[in-house]
Amino acid sequence: MIIVKIGGGSTINIPGVIEDLAGIDERYVIVHGANALRDKLAEDLGQPKQVLTSVKGYTSVYSDEKLLNVMMMAYAGLRNKRIVELCQQQGINAVGLSGLDGKMVQGQRNKGIRVYQGKKLKIVRDFSGKPKTVNAPLLQLLLDNGYVPVLTVPIIDELNAAINTENDDVVRVLQQALKADTVINLIEAPGFLEDRNDAGSLIAKISAGELEAREQQVEGRMKRKILALRKLFEHGASRIVIGDGRREHPVIDALAGKGTVIE
Amino acid sequence: MIIVKIGGGSTINIPGVIEDLAGIDERYVIVHGANALRDKLAEDLGQPKQVLTSVKGYTSVYSDEKLLNVMMMAYAGLRNKRIVELCQQQGINAVGLSGLDGKMVQGQRNKGIRVYQGKKLKIVRDFSGKPKTVNAPLLQLLLDNGYVPVLTVPIIDELNAAINTENDDVVRVLQQALKADTVINLIEAPGFLEDRNDAGSLIAKISAGELEAREQQVEGRMKRKILALRKLFEHGASRIVIGDGRREHPVIDALAGKGTVIE
Repeated sequence: MIIVKIGGGSTINIPGVIEDLAGIDERYVIVHGANALRDKLAEDLGQPKQVLTSVKGYTSVYSDEKLLNVMMMAYAGLRNKRIVELCQQQGINAVGLSGLDGKMVQGQRNKGIRVYQGKKLKIVRDFSGKPKTVNAPLLQLLLDNGYVPVLTVPIIDELNAAINTENDDVVRVLQQALKADTVINLIEAPGFLEDRNDAGSLIAKISAGELEAREQQVEGRMKRKILALRKLFEHGASRIVIGDGRREHPVIDALAGKGTVIE
Repeated sequence: MIIVKIGGGSTINIPGVIEDLAGIDERYVIVHGANALRDKLAEDLGQPKQVLTSVKGYTSVYSDEKLLNVMMMAYAGLRNKRIVELCQQQGINAVGLSGLDGKMVQGQRNKGIRVYQGKKLKIVRDFSGKPKTVNAPLLQLLLDNGYVPVLTVPIIDELNAAINTENDDVVRVLQQALKADTVINLIEAPGFLEDRNDAGSLIAKISAGELEAREQQVEGRMKRKILALRKLFEHGASRIVIGDGRREHPVIDALAGKGTVIE
């Protein structure tokens, strides 16, 4: 079982990803982002996103009801359905689902994010949270009947409200539920870079044990991403490939070990 | 089996519809529109819709790639996911799907719509078409496992491209596949009106045989809607209720025969 995460950047070669997947024999589930699309849509609608930075240094998007609406449009609507369409054109019988559908991804809403406003400590509560479980029976039902699930945010919280979450965290609970051995994470870079401004500084291999040290070296969104990767290994993943989603054959190349292999 | 069609007008009481459905014992499938939402979104994005009127007098929205994007956002994204969320909050384990997902609704793309441009006859081809079949096995799989399908456009054409279609036509192919005996059609009016400008002119009952004559009396979008209703009876529906979606209890009232009952 493979989990393929397609990043939400604007330069990811999605048709190439789907074409590659059409040639794969193993079972897989797709999880995708749409952050570039969401940001553009929010801008076009005159409601640019606000980013919160927690006191611990993790960043997240301030997810009020309006932003959730935009996310439903960008992630669960446009991006999800165009990916499903591409899948169908390649002979993959995809079914696109948000975490709300059949309670596919259930989470717990954040009680509040501790942020500094100027020098004041403030607790901000929005519609965001952490995924806790997935509806594994529904996933298996679809997989057993020849359908490929294409999952995205939002997810559903303990009171059945739509909440935003990080797709990296969705991948984590999905990996636990499906016992996926391989996770392919397609991003807009050659893989993990020693120096983020130097595309030539690719780290070809990282041991799972090294991840904690790496987490300390980075900031913001990347910090959160490495934390999510670390947790994958705690729950039985054996191989993660951070691959370049912009290549002609993003999935074939990632499976061949191009990018950063963590194992 | 009941098919509940929720119209896409802005004043439909969707929470009331879902609350009513939570109390129903019979199996049902939801089909919903989102035309008011789509039009507003298209306006907000600076790409207002264009309407085509065929030489036969039927009107339809000109569905280019951009409009399909907007539809994916409005119908399959925002409206679909907020309905699924409301369902989950009422204990209905809903799964929202477009016609693309698992090829739920397959159709045939229009070869072209014959329109007059000034006095010139022109054939315009867009991403629109007619639904032909539904994926009944996937619907049954979901229903048998306790899920309520919540369906909307776009659908998928014979070359696996996303196309726009009328939700009334989706209801028609769905009714054929599911052998639904009852179709509830919730709109922004008390039912069929003798005079569309007089809310007091409700027609409480119409026989199925009368529909053809009615079709001749009306124009534009309503003409197309009555045609779709007529076809429902050709394929075994026994009762259609056109109910007021703006009421406190749209579904309970429709099932009690309030609105226009066609049988």
